Amino acid sequence: MVNGLFITIEGPDGAGKTSVINELYPRLQLIAKRGIVKTREPGGVKISEKIRQIILDPQNEEMDERTEALLYAAARRQHLVQVILPALSAGKIVICDRFVDSSLAYQGAGRRIGMPDIRKINEFATEGTKPDFTLYLDVDSDTGLKRIENARSGRQVDRLETESLEFHQRVRHAYLKLAEEEPIRIHKVDARMSLTDVVEESFTAITESYPQFF
Amino acid sequence: MVNGLFITIEGPDGAGKTSVINELYPRLQLIAKRGIVKTREPGGVKISEKIRQIILDPQNEEMDERTEALLYAAARRQHLVQVILPALSAGKIVICDRFVDSSLAYQGAGRRIGMPDIRKINEFATEGTKPDFTLYLDVDSDTGLKRIENARSGRQVDRLETESLEFHQRVRHAYLKLAEEEPIRIHKVDARMSLTDVVEESFTAITESYPQFF
Repeated sequence: MVNGLFITIEGPDGAGKTSVINELYPRLQLIAKRGIVKTREPGGVKISEKIRQIILDPQNEEMDERTEALLYAAARRQHLVQVILPALSAGKIVICDRFVDSSLAYQGAGRRIGMPDIRKINEFATEGTKPDFTLYLDVDSDTGLKRIENARSGRQVDRLETESLEFHQRVRHAYLKLAEEEPIRIHKVDARMSLTDVVEESFTAITESYPQFF
Repeated sequence: MVNGLFITIEGPDGAGKTSVINELYPRLQLIAKRGIVKTREPGGVKISEKIRQIILDPQNEEMDERTEALLYAAARRQHLVQVILPALSAGKIVICDRFVDSSLAYQGAGRRIGMPDIRKINEFATEGTKPDFTLYLDVDSDTGLKRIENARSGRQVDRLETESLEFHQRVRHAYLKLAEEEPIRIHKVDARMSLTDVVEESFTAITESYPQFF
């Protein structure tokens, strides 16, 4: 059924995911044989956008951690069904900014719900769809948070960005653990390198791992 | 931690839950030693109300079944944390119109997701909080649907009420199966009886099962 290639990009806040995707995507697009789609949750999907509004609204400060985790899983499900699966079925490459690993790191470790419980609700949401390949942009929490501080000036801070340094450290350690557990799926890139170097390493890793798509 | 008594009322559409609660609650309230709280999801909880709006909006016709199930679990979690658990901790009786059994019946069986999967995400949402006692108002689907038809005239039909007869039959059979599996927790009442008789049987069942609360 699924013939495409599902790539996710993961990393703590400030790892530079957006900048990397913005450079990487046009280069992959030029050589992708059967098309490529760039997306991120909620991905313009109406129902997922509405769910996301509830999650990120700073007024919802009474939000329980497990409520939040279930909402992320719900938004993910709808985006998967409406955007990711149709593109994969058409044989395309899908490059998605964050997926289940983000929930494992942020809700499982960051919010201390525990990764096994987060895995369970996300297995329900994804019905077994896993990324074929994950770029993990690794950055220490100090560097990451400094980058957000700089980028943030002028725009409103959302509910997740107001978390403590310890929260962000737990998130990063969870990512490192996941990368250790699944070294074939998860390709770790040192995101303290220059943007050019990060993009170059990412481009090479993807095109060499899946030559049949390029 | 939890010293109260957690009672839920369940049943297919048209079983008459609302009418029964409206008669039963004031009678129990008069004799409840440590107080009693009547509630239903989303129960006036702001976050759960917002989630409920997404679920019930007839415009969200592209809603995937698993998205819907996760949203119900999310709304349930928040209502549990903000309303049910505080009341139970204060030693009160909580009487709640619908809870996890509804999701097992409606999403698990009605929408055919399967009860084990629905149980998993609701275990995540409830962290083991189960009703002490469940009144199950049993009615055949024909009778139930006729009652809704009559009650519905004039008001807008929501997304769940537009389901087929077969859907409602699957829901009822799931309830019957649950009642068979847990005969001590789930007390089945024949809801084709007169309202007075249903209320009388329900009142007796509750007060005789938990004399220490009255």
